[in-house]
Amino acid sequence: MTEAAQAAAARASELCDAALAGDRLALARLLTAVENRTPVAESALRRLYPLAGGAHLVGITGPPGSGKSTLVSALIATARAAGRAVGVIAVDPSSPITGGALLGDRVRMQAYAADSDVFIRSMASRGHAGGLASTSAAAAAVLDAAGFDLILLETVGTGQSEVEVAASADTTVVLEAPEMGDEVQAIKAGLLEVADIVVVNKGDRPGAQRTAAQLRAMLTASARVGQGIVDKPRPKQPQVLVTTALSGDGVPELLAAIDGLRGTATASTAARATRAEAQVWAILADRLRAELSKPGLRAAAAATLAQVAAHELDPFTAADRLLEEIARARN
Amino acid sequence: MTEAAQAAAARASELCDAALAGDRLALARLLTAVENRTPVAESALRRLYPLAGGAHLVGITGPPGSGKSTLVSALIATARAAGRAVGVIAVDPSSPITGGALLGDRVRMQAYAADSDVFIRSMASRGHAGGLASTSAAAAAVLDAAGFDLILLETVGTGQSEVEVAASADTTVVLEAPEMGDEVQAIKAGLLEVADIVVVNKGDRPGAQRTAAQLRAMLTASARVGQGIVDKPRPKQPQVLVTTALSGDGVPELLAAIDGLRGTATASTAARATRAEAQVWAILADRLRAELSKPGLRAAAAATLAQVAAHELDPFTAADRLLEEIARARN
Repeated sequence: MTEAAQAAAARASELCDAALAGDRLALARLLTAVENRTPVAESALRRLYPLAGGAHLVGITGPPGSGKSTLVSALIATARAAGRAVGVIAVDPSSPITGGALLGDRVRMQAYAADSDVFIRSMASRGHAGGLASTSAAAAAVLDAAGFDLILLETVGTGQSEVEVAASADTTVVLEAPEMGDEVQAIKAGLLEVADIVVVNKGDRPGAQRTAAQLRAMLTASARVGQGIVDKPRPKQPQVLVTTALSGDGVPELLAAIDGLRGTATASTAARATRAEAQVWAILADRLRAELSKPGLRAAAAATLAQVAAHELDPFTAADRLLEEIARARN
Repeated sequence: MTEAAQAAAARASELCDAALAGDRLALARLLTAVENRTPVAESALRRLYPLAGGAHLVGITGPPGSGKSTLVSALIATARAAGRAVGVIAVDPSSPITGGALLGDRVRMQAYAADSDVFIRSMASRGHAGGLASTSAAAAAVLDAAGFDLILLETVGTGQSEVEVAASADTTVVLEAPEMGDEVQAIKAGLLEVADIVVVNKGDRPGAQRTAAQLRAMLTASARVGQGIVDKPRPKQPQVLVTTALSGDGVPELLAAIDGLRGTATASTAARATRAEAQVWAILADRLRAELSKPGLRAAAAATLAQVAAHELDPFTAADRLLEEIARARN
């Protein structure tokens, strides 16, 4: 083990001890390491991952303006009233470059600053291949190991990666607001495919119950279409609930519906496989990247990529050349 | 070469000949192959990629409701009036699972069905790591080789992958509609970072000019902040234009601004490097996946991933075990 690796392992061990003992600052530092894919994160995850697996990971997604943040806050309040510890991972698309957190998120965190059984974390993945999926899965494992039993994974459901992240949770809740515009309706069709529970939020607005009824009809129709001639519901026909997150109306019923799906295995098993695969693939890509960054290969790899950028070399020939160079460097 | 590989090469050769001779059906079939990452696509791209690199690739992104599709149609009409060939790749987030195209896109295609110098294609990437970026870059290379000189890459700018795809174009246009909601404003801050040109569309609405003025002020302020004490504009301070895509007002000026940025190298050079890297990395991941799918390794790889899903094994140990197994299988 190199000196740097030893230092990372020592630091990871220290942070894990503290985080497992309930130190929230240590937990926050571990999540920062996970987000940045540092050697400390690797060492920490090797220890924490086997301690995780017990929490219920709930994805919450929906288009901008559907009231996700308010609903997440209402779910936290309801779960806290029942004495449960709640972790939140908010995947934040506000800035693809600087990864800045939404202001509202910091405000929300302040509301729970004194409550050690609520932990809210914004994450912005920074352009790793598969980064969003693997980072959020790793972050969930850390919160899970640290004793958070209910983990909400909040994303804005208009991007492919973000929808996939929410869909990779054990249970996926998709929000709708009543009477959204046409383009949003089109997006909704895709979102509905990943939903275990559909929530029409802003239930106090006119049209909320009608939107819920339309969604139920749409989901029943698509279940029939999906099944062809045999008229039986598809295995995972989502429930449709109405909430008013601001007043809290319908939120206890939503939490009960979420709890009711806990451990109803098929979807969750598939989601766990998806999360495992995302993490392993991201690590394999990191390993490959590390090989190509070694002093002996770095210059050659950069030159090969530059040839592709200049269209002097096609990307397949380039990829095969890089693989040959890795193999040669190893022998 | 296996029999299957020979057949793919023959089919690719046939489709490339036809596409290069102007056959639009062959071009469509090549793009389907690229989207599905088939052996035909690999063979075709090995041939077409070196023929590409001349087109101006323009990313167009913005939140839902900002009028992207209408603006793209207006840009097509303006470019066609000048006798130019226009390709459009619309990255379609409507369905992460079935990858269905937005209805409006099909309507748009019909309008140009008889015009062989317009080619519009919807793409939905299906969950490959880095798939959206590499697939759209490869599709652009195919259109480029087929002689489309102006290629518009349209995405919905609310997801990380979608914003990254638009940002990886040579020139990136970010749309805003006047007076959008609060959450959208937050997203906008991230979008602005990737913009070469910011367009306030729906310019006939009250507030459009004021929104443009606010954006100019915001961009000037952020340029100053970004530069610290030295008060000079950042290298890539975006222009702010106002268009009314429905009537066509401001669209010729937008196209002129886009053309004006053609070949202004720094941003484009970085974008080309990004696109090259995305493609090479996706191919490396495909190669790794193919290794792990070989009969000798498939069962062991599946068992390892299942152990990770069950939290019996951490993902780092799993990744290293898979790499060892690949190395052993090779020797």
